[in-house]
Amino acid sequence: MAIPAPSSQREMRRRNLSRVLHAVAEAGQVSRAAVAARIGLTRASVSTLVEELLRAGFLVELGPGRSGGVGRPGNALALTDLGPCGLGAEIGVDHLTVCAVDLRGQVRARRTDEAPNRGEGPAAVLRRLGSLTERVTDDAGAAGLRPAGLAVAVPGLVTRSSTTVVHAPNLGWHNTDIAEHLPGPLRLTVDNEANFGALAELWQREPEDAPADFVHVSAEVGIGAAVVLDGQLLRGRRGFAGELGHVPVEPDGPDCACGGSGCLEQYAGEAAMLGAAGVEAHGAGGRSAALAELQARAERGDTAALAALRRAGRALGIALAAAVNLLDPRAVVLGGTLAGLAPWLLPSLDAELRRRTAAPGAVPELAVSAIGSAGPSLGAAHSVVRTVLSDPLPYAAAR
Amino acid sequence: MAIPAPSSQREMRRRNLSRVLHAVAEAGQVSRAAVAARIGLTRASVSTLVEELLRAGFLVELGPGRSGGVGRPGNALALTDLGPCGLGAEIGVDHLTVCAVDLRGQVRARRTDEAPNRGEGPAAVLRRLGSLTERVTDDAGAAGLRPAGLAVAVPGLVTRSSTTVVHAPNLGWHNTDIAEHLPGPLRLTVDNEANFGALAELWQREPEDAPADFVHVSAEVGIGAAVVLDGQLLRGRRGFAGELGHVPVEPDGPDCACGGSGCLEQYAGEAAMLGAAGVEAHGAGGRSAALAELQARAERGDTAALAALRRAGRALGIALAAAVNLLDPRAVVLGGTLAGLAPWLLPSLDAELRRRTAAPGAVPELAVSAIGSAGPSLGAAHSVVRTVLSDPLPYAAAR
Repeated sequence: MAIPAPSSQREMRRRNLSRVLHAVAEAGQVSRAAVAARIGLTRASVSTLVEELLRAGFLVELGPGRSGGVGRPGNALALTDLGPCGLGAEIGVDHLTVCAVDLRGQVRARRTDEAPNRGEGPAAVLRRLGSLTERVTDDAGAAGLRPAGLAVAVPGLVTRSSTTVVHAPNLGWHNTDIAEHLPGPLRLTVDNEANFGALAELWQREPEDAPADFVHVSAEVGIGAAVVLDGQLLRGRRGFAGELGHVPVEPDGPDCACGGSGCLEQYAGEAAMLGAAGVEAHGAGGRSAALAELQARAERGDTAALAALRRAGRALGIALAAAVNLLDPRAVVLGGTLAGLAPWLLPSLDAELRRRTAAPGAVPELAVSAIGSAGPSLGAAHSVVRTVLSDPLPYAAAR
Repeated sequence: MAIPAPSSQREMRRRNLSRVLHAVAEAGQVSRAAVAARIGLTRASVSTLVEELLRAGFLVELGPGRSGGVGRPGNALALTDLGPCGLGAEIGVDHLTVCAVDLRGQVRARRTDEAPNRGEGPAAVLRRLGSLTERVTDDAGAAGLRPAGLAVAVPGLVTRSSTTVVHAPNLGWHNTDIAEHLPGPLRLTVDNEANFGALAELWQREPEDAPADFVHVSAEVGIGAAVVLDGQLLRGRRGFAGELGHVPVEPDGPDCACGGSGCLEQYAGEAAMLGAAGVEAHGAGGRSAALAELQARAERGDTAALAALRRAGRALGIALAAAVNLLDPRAVVLGGTLAGLAPWLLPSLDAELRRRTAAPGAVPELAVSAIGSAGPSLGAAHSVVRTVLSDPLPYAAAR
């Protein structure tokens, strides 16, 4: 049986500091009284916690009369836009991106290095990522920010709570420990790009319209997905949950590199869609040019392009029917490459999903991500920020 | 952003009482000192909590020298085998079962009423369930137990945190509120039989070998499943998660009553297996006789029976490959009807699952449930017991 976590005075104070920070983060600007009401502590307790957070440099006071609440005006509190920030990186198949996000959730620096990473060894790629990270750290430093940690999104399977990429077929990396190649003082976390992309989706929305239960489909070269349930990412035993790309769609379909056959990737993966549409996948301009060409052909009604996208949509609908029947999420969100192709994918996707959802009543909301390709690096940076908000004191400024 | 739950002295005491009870429940018999070590509180704090739990009748002292631990011998503590108990009921297609489980987890009373429930209205069936529950309450009372609540397992979809069965096709019930037909003072909870069956599987195992992440496949007339992740049941937005029976296996396969086609139930459901094997499904003796006949034919090597089970196993492997790729569980457990047929299902199931699992490394452990058909009612009764252990004071004996 599970025994709940220890409760002690120290633990309670730590938790309450975090609750104050989260309440301020959610409100943007808020009075002490409103924080107290929101988290159910006395005004006096909140004042003590707030003083500590002001001294440690996590909160700032904006002066009287700006809190926007009712009752006696008090100095409005806000999170600092200086001090700790989160660094988020993405290792894509053909780019590296690093960004810095402050405690308020604002992107304060971002740099991208466009170059093919596929087939380059981890050492070379991570050396380039290291210098890109240094440059973004310098940019952030010039804005008064210091990194509290670095989170790296990779297009592959990452062992849960580790920095090891077990398998990233589109990079050609296997059992690569990112920490080994990225030395430095920063606390490092590594996760799948679909996971960080879904977290960006979760955290960028306003609290009131966040579907805290969704399957986020994220396609670049491969198809990945992340499952968010009750606001939490579902990771799986080893950290390998969300492999939507290998859900069987036609059990006797084309062989897949994973060892199976008829997997979703064989119908809705980038190569499969381009192939079925007759678009050259490896022409000049690479992936993005080929995808733009597919989209242009669909826009002008090219029969082969439309059929390829209809077939991909149908396959997505079948695989997502498995996910919806198993998970009963509130929404399905199409992200990555699929977001741009949604107008042509959605009709057949929706029809399959609708007729194959077993439970009566509405099928999940079908949404298209508005975040675009920055999702994984944004989600990664935000994950560091949330670590700080959840346990701030280790990140206080040295005095 | 999520704000952690309130922390107060009262809440802390409530949580600590529960932690003491869970520690005793896990150990069976244990000294105060061992409880203190286990939950990380001081000996003095634990003694105060234990006194309160002894006075309220949740714990008993077994006398000195029986704690089995090291150090100064103290009176061993155990949970009471009197006082509050959980009542668990199952509404099956052709039976009703009610059992009473004490705080120690022992079944102290059980009654079954064998009669067809399909097509009977909810009013008539629940009237019979009401009187069966009264008889088990009397049995429990004679043993010194008083019910703390009643949990009912049904073969259908139950809206999360409600007592409403939205859809139970094999009973012919739709939008049936169990509470309306089962009046009385007992706190009532209702859930899908696959969910309670999985919880029985989780709670009946020893803590050390419990796979706290598993997909539990539960087949009676239909096929259901429950997903347990990190020891928690995955319910889904509306409470409809786990509909493995309607995961697409062959998208262009036979039509299914759900509106889809080629669903798992069309290959591995009871009717599908019996039909493919050429066993009369509705002969004398009903379902259980037909299933016994299928098993007997498989045992004597009947070609049609073996082919039907091989086909069902393959379909299970394909649907479970979807589940495993999405969820990355530690184990898959076959329960209900499938447990008895496992010797003939497993070879083709295992082969499909193995080649279709995308992540490298071992596929999940494949296990066969040993609990048998009592799982749902047992899990239901245990769920009531755990409610008591998690917040005991409301269930203290009146004094």
